[in-house]
Amino acid sequence: MPNSNFAYDIADLTAKDRDHMIHPWVDLGTVQSREPLIVAQGEGACIYNVQGQRMIDGIGGMWCVNIGYGREEMAQAIADQARKLCYFSPFGIIGTPPSIELAERLTRHAPGDLKHVFFTTGGSTAVDSALRFVHFYNNFKGRPNKKQIITREYAYHGSTLLSASVSGKPADRGRMDLITSFIHHLPAPNPYRRPDGMSLESYGDQVVGDLERKILELGPENVACFIAEPLLASGGVIVPPPGYQRRTWEICRKYDVLYISDEVVTGFGRLGHIFASEPVFGIQPDIITCAKGLTSGYVPLGAFLVSDRLYSELTETAGKGQSFSNGYTYSAHPVACAAALTNLDIIERDDICGHVQRVGPYFHQQLETLTDLDMVGDVRGSHFMVCIECTADKKTKAVPPAEWDVARRIFEKCMPRGLLIRPMGHLIVFSPTLVISRAQIDEAVAILRACMSEVQDDLRRDGFKIAA
Amino acid sequence: MPNSNFAYDIADLTAKDRDHMIHPWVDLGTVQSREPLIVAQGEGACIYNVQGQRMIDGIGGMWCVNIGYGREEMAQAIADQARKLCYFSPFGIIGTPPSIELAERLTRHAPGDLKHVFFTTGGSTAVDSALRFVHFYNNFKGRPNKKQIITREYAYHGSTLLSASVSGKPADRGRMDLITSFIHHLPAPNPYRRPDGMSLESYGDQVVGDLERKILELGPENVACFIAEPLLASGGVIVPPPGYQRRTWEICRKYDVLYISDEVVTGFGRLGHIFASEPVFGIQPDIITCAKGLTSGYVPLGAFLVSDRLYSELTETAGKGQSFSNGYTYSAHPVACAAALTNLDIIERDDICGHVQRVGPYFHQQLETLTDLDMVGDVRGSHFMVCIECTADKKTKAVPPAEWDVARRIFEKCMPRGLLIRPMGHLIVFSPTLVISRAQIDEAVAILRACMSEVQDDLRRDGFKIAA
Repeated sequence: MPNSNFAYDIADLTAKDRDHMIHPWVDLGTVQSREPLIVAQGEGACIYNVQGQRMIDGIGGMWCVNIGYGREEMAQAIADQARKLCYFSPFGIIGTPPSIELAERLTRHAPGDLKHVFFTTGGSTAVDSALRFVHFYNNFKGRPNKKQIITREYAYHGSTLLSASVSGKPADRGRMDLITSFIHHLPAPNPYRRPDGMSLESYGDQVVGDLERKILELGPENVACFIAEPLLASGGVIVPPPGYQRRTWEICRKYDVLYISDEVVTGFGRLGHIFASEPVFGIQPDIITCAKGLTSGYVPLGAFLVSDRLYSELTETAGKGQSFSNGYTYSAHPVACAAALTNLDIIERDDICGHVQRVGPYFHQQLETLTDLDMVGDVRGSHFMVCIECTADKKTKAVPPAEWDVARRIFEKCMPRGLLIRPMGHLIVFSPTLVISRAQIDEAVAILRACMSEVQDDLRRDGFKIAA
Repeated sequence: MPNSNFAYDIADLTAKDRDHMIHPWVDLGTVQSREPLIVAQGEGACIYNVQGQRMIDGIGGMWCVNIGYGREEMAQAIADQARKLCYFSPFGIIGTPPSIELAERLTRHAPGDLKHVFFTTGGSTAVDSALRFVHFYNNFKGRPNKKQIITREYAYHGSTLLSASVSGKPADRGRMDLITSFIHHLPAPNPYRRPDGMSLESYGDQVVGDLERKILELGPENVACFIAEPLLASGGVIVPPPGYQRRTWEICRKYDVLYISDEVVTGFGRLGHIFASEPVFGIQPDIITCAKGLTSGYVPLGAFLVSDRLYSELTETAGKGQSFSNGYTYSAHPVACAAALTNLDIIERDDICGHVQRVGPYFHQQLETLTDLDMVGDVRGSHFMVCIECTADKKTKAVPPAEWDVARRIFEKCMPRGLLIRPMGHLIVFSPTLVISRAQIDEAVAILRACMSEVQDDLRRDGFKIAA
């Protein structure tokens, strides 16, 4: 335990949470009766709740605490910057040393000619601003009709109106209003859900074709961009068929459609590279959005990087109306940028990308052992982003009915035994910090196996049918 | 000087800034030739550029460094929380001690029954989420047509697509796409620009009537909310006629239209109170949005507070689809919330609201002495938010032509003499930290007077006519 002082007034915190905190993504009608998990401390790959109980953090904060919790160097770097210059605005031509250094450093890791950085406050604002930048760019180019945006079902790109509208998780729609007039969703490229008997190759052709057909249907002259996570993260760690990213990128180039690679989750080591687009998927996007691992979550920060090809069209001559009227008070925040610089130092010095490359395959092998459970339909992902899909029937891949509440049952059993996972309906997402060890992976998988077996038994005892 | 080490490689930083940083709100065609102001350090009410030159920060960072720069307690609180728990997600029913404590503490300062807090990453996301919450609420209430939003020209509410669309500064439109289908702008309630010969009372009736007429034109059953800064901040510190805020709030109540008070700028002391809505303007809004002074800018954070009246309708019974599918990775960030708690401690202990109440009138008196300059048309604002409007003719209130570049000329003269102000066309915005002393105000006003006189002479020498 990192600190023996767990003198929290739990009843008081619980009451205050219930009475005053509006939590995202929760049925507000259940707030009165639920006991919150209150996380108090963190160290390495683990967190501790207010009761002092240790858990392996299988969420990585929220896919973000890449370098792990409790890094003294981060605390020092953040405090030093807060002392020296706690804040300054980047509006106009004002900069701060850490934000300028970070912009330059990010471009060293970026593929192709992505040499220009626009900072935001997180992933949602990175996507919102990147899409607004694309529209602004097309207005500047005299193409006011080239505004349609293509995205995918089960994508997740953020929570502002615009970034939520290009997202596509059905569960997030609910009673939320979304923009539909210039946004188009392709089916998710999910091999597990491909038609029975279709080869992976044919399925790849089909989902790549979906993009080309949509561009032609809308007219390439009307399509601004395609936005895509390399792997669809919170939609259930969907890994498209081999070659999908490269082929869709080539189609975008063919039709003069910009390709935005949303690396908010995949960036900063989760797939073993600072940016995964080029080393893993062989693409040089026009824009990359990032956040989360950029600071390992220690301080909020987001950014998008844009190609020199696009940017230089805007900088050629002055006075043509190329002021990008967009930016946030906390864009390029010096404390956040100082955190990001130290975060990159740690990732490089500790060879965290190497650790992910070495341990990632082991992590998958261990999780794949769970497929002997009747309830496990699919274990998928790459490196340190994984999803286990539960099913009522392995053969038909039947989705368990919502009333089974299967992932939440597993979540609730795992917590007291020392593992926090992310339950999403019938999916369990597992995205640990990037410093998790083989021993901790073994521990986590053992807990998961025990809990999933018990839930399987419980469900059967409750009369729910799981095909053997 | 807070730290004698100013060993920055200025040429290197300047080149990196030019080559890699996309600045908000700047003609991108001018980037190649401009010398950035690179701010390196801050202490109290002052900042220091990389050359080591001290300036009184007349911007307050960006209306945000309320408690001033270089607070050791803030650095400590931030570092302590980063060590203990650098991050955790608030999604579902997960909390952290600082975020729960902060939610409760904010509600103690809030007017009326604003007892529930939704955290975001800054002002833009606070507004974006608050507006999405209003739409979600009306969907839940079975009023899917009650979605129209009324706002005002010269309002500023943020930079996401939605928050920018409810903003109304003409200069920000440019080549930016905005939502127009459900957003309606009233004229700005700017007494300086009221029709010649109209009394302030009559003008008040007119601008209050603008809201009522718009609600009736759209049909109250179609109008979701009115969003308003108590004073229109970055639109030029526009102070509506007396009673305007209270009367518009009463009209909203009359027609069952929600009132969102955007206190991103006015909150946390700038007008002498933690929230200004009730003590200054006599209103109990349905929602208050806040950010900036919430942490004094040390760490990014935003929030909106919502009334118990609205919230309790959503929490009565479960399973009716009242999951607010909105939230950011960095919502309720524990390091940001720890910073906000210490910020509130400092505001209270140092009686910063009292300082603003005492020194605010002096600040105005001193700035009003500038009205003897031919070029000064209006000095307006309240407490620590002020705007000086330049004119080509005091009598006709003629706006100086854009080519005079009057505010930028003043800005550029002030900097080398030790004062940073915010130039906006022909407006100079002055919104210092809330720890500025009387002596520093005297110093700032003296610099401003000297520079404005010189610019006035320069303009006349350049052949521009300023009526005597």
